[in-house]
Amino acid sequence: MTDIAMIEAAAARAKGIVRETPLLSSPFLDEIAGRRVLAKAEVLQHTGSFKFRGGWAAVSALDPETRARGVLAFSSGNHAQGVAHAAQLHGVPAIIIMPKDAPALKIENTRALGAEVVLYDRAGGEKREEIGARLQAERNMTLIKPFDDAQVIAGQGTCGLEIAAQTAALGITQGTVLTCCGGGGLTSGIALALAAKAPGMTVRPVEPEGFDDTAISLASGTRTRHASPEAGFCDAILTPMPGEITFPILSRLCGPGIVVTELEVREAMRLAATRLKLVVEPGGAVALAAALFHGRALADGPVICTLSGGNADPALYAEILAGG
Amino acid sequence: MTDIAMIEAAAARAKGIVRETPLLSSPFLDEIAGRRVLAKAEVLQHTGSFKFRGGWAAVSALDPETRARGVLAFSSGNHAQGVAHAAQLHGVPAIIIMPKDAPALKIENTRALGAEVVLYDRAGGEKREEIGARLQAERNMTLIKPFDDAQVIAGQGTCGLEIAAQTAALGITQGTVLTCCGGGGLTSGIALALAAKAPGMTVRPVEPEGFDDTAISLASGTRTRHASPEAGFCDAILTPMPGEITFPILSRLCGPGIVVTELEVREAMRLAATRLKLVVEPGGAVALAAALFHGRALADGPVICTLSGGNADPALYAEILAGG
Repeated sequence: MTDIAMIEAAAARAKGIVRETPLLSSPFLDEIAGRRVLAKAEVLQHTGSFKFRGGWAAVSALDPETRARGVLAFSSGNHAQGVAHAAQLHGVPAIIIMPKDAPALKIENTRALGAEVVLYDRAGGEKREEIGARLQAERNMTLIKPFDDAQVIAGQGTCGLEIAAQTAALGITQGTVLTCCGGGGLTSGIALALAAKAPGMTVRPVEPEGFDDTAISLASGTRTRHASPEAGFCDAILTPMPGEITFPILSRLCGPGIVVTELEVREAMRLAATRLKLVVEPGGAVALAAALFHGRALADGPVICTLSGGNADPALYAEILAGG
Repeated sequence: MTDIAMIEAAAARAKGIVRETPLLSSPFLDEIAGRRVLAKAEVLQHTGSFKFRGGWAAVSALDPETRARGVLAFSSGNHAQGVAHAAQLHGVPAIIIMPKDAPALKIENTRALGAEVVLYDRAGGEKREEIGARLQAERNMTLIKPFDDAQVIAGQGTCGLEIAAQTAALGITQGTVLTCCGGGGLTSGIALALAAKAPGMTVRPVEPEGFDDTAISLASGTRTRHASPEAGFCDAILTPMPGEITFPILSRLCGPGIVVTELEVREAMRLAATRLKLVVEPGGAVALAAALFHGRALADGPVICTLSGGNADPALYAEILAGG
């Protein structure tokens, strides 16, 4: 199980490779939120999202012989790029299983990072887990799951270590940390890191409307599926329910989930561009949307939000910036 | 005159206030350029451009009594915001003289940063220098010029100190540093810092086609005006000729100027968004355009380029991202 020692070991292996991303702010955002807002700019991480942290942690943790046979991942895009780039830097092969309807840029980038891409039809009922298991058996490669993997959680936890150090440097010891939450890998990693290093912080997962499986699972105390189909606006974080490994961590360490609307996410993306000069994809902007527009649901004090990914589809992104 | 001691003193006064901006990269950009490209992300500086460095250096260098009477600046936008925010943080008044046709966002932001904005009609023949001199006499405030000011150059030079330290940390001691060049404040500051701290670097100013006063001045050895009207695509860097103070520094320390086209700047802005997740304004993207598309004009080896500002007009920016 992931613990603070495993997160610190992941941070040691990541040194000089994984970027320490800045904690940014703008007086204009503070004014909208009515409080201090600090944005953890994971869009600046290698491959454009925090997922490189987990990919690097998992690939670097393998014994050399196992690693040499290569790794396998299924992902709607950001985990794919994170694992592909980690494999590429280690000089080992990677196969990535991606849905046919993933943004073209994410598929193209994954191939450009040296991975072999296998596409599947999620609308047609194919299950990525089954394809992954079959390829794993056939090629004897190591499957790196997107969130239900102790080393992946440890890697995402390195983001939490940075948040703890960066807020401490600003004299902040109490606050709310809002995370963009899909399967819960980033959220559980950050929650574990902060429980050890900044226990005055409360971590709260944020999800898009209709894909609030973590919020309803936390409220009910059991892992529960949301009712929506798989496709949706915030494509990076549309998991059907919290992970087997991640949910007990979330349940133990996090506050209640927060749900934001698509209109709020679009506005948060525009504000990230004009006020922070950062390109943020829909799934990476839900935490900022909560920070800006759901302040009444939060305890007083500063809020730290992850801007977890920036791999937006260019055409959709241009439409959103134009006011759509 | 600005020297390395003055730059280091500016850096000491800036500590904990001015952001150390990251030096970012992407394998996709390296591939296009055919060499290693490192982007100095000044768009992440407070107020969205490097100009806060110079504004802070100049305001913080004033004696307290002079400072308390306030400061005055004329600027098409980024210098305005830099000085306004520096005055705001010092708790002193600021008047900013801006052209009526500056991007609306820059005018609005300058007001929001607590400054009094005075608009003038540059197409109608009004001279900002005359308005500035008149207001300076009437209100007994200190005029902070956008580039021909020793402390402003020292402040911009702090960007050069960071480039020297960040490239040294990557083991890079030889390379080309491309700067987005208007009046030459950033370029001369960086050139002074690197001459002292990273003498293996060659600084080369980059300008948009038609506004190549620095390139022609460096080629001829005397300050020369370009032939274009004042308005143009790269609004932040459309000075008519190099500065009185900056030009001798550029002339002594910089390599030849490089000129890029508007189409190259638009493509560089799109690539900064998709590959670096950064919003860059036209005038802030000329150095990246040169790094990507003018490699044959450069010596072998890595290239470092400033992404000097991100305060793009939202409608124009959306149009550019959509492929325009």
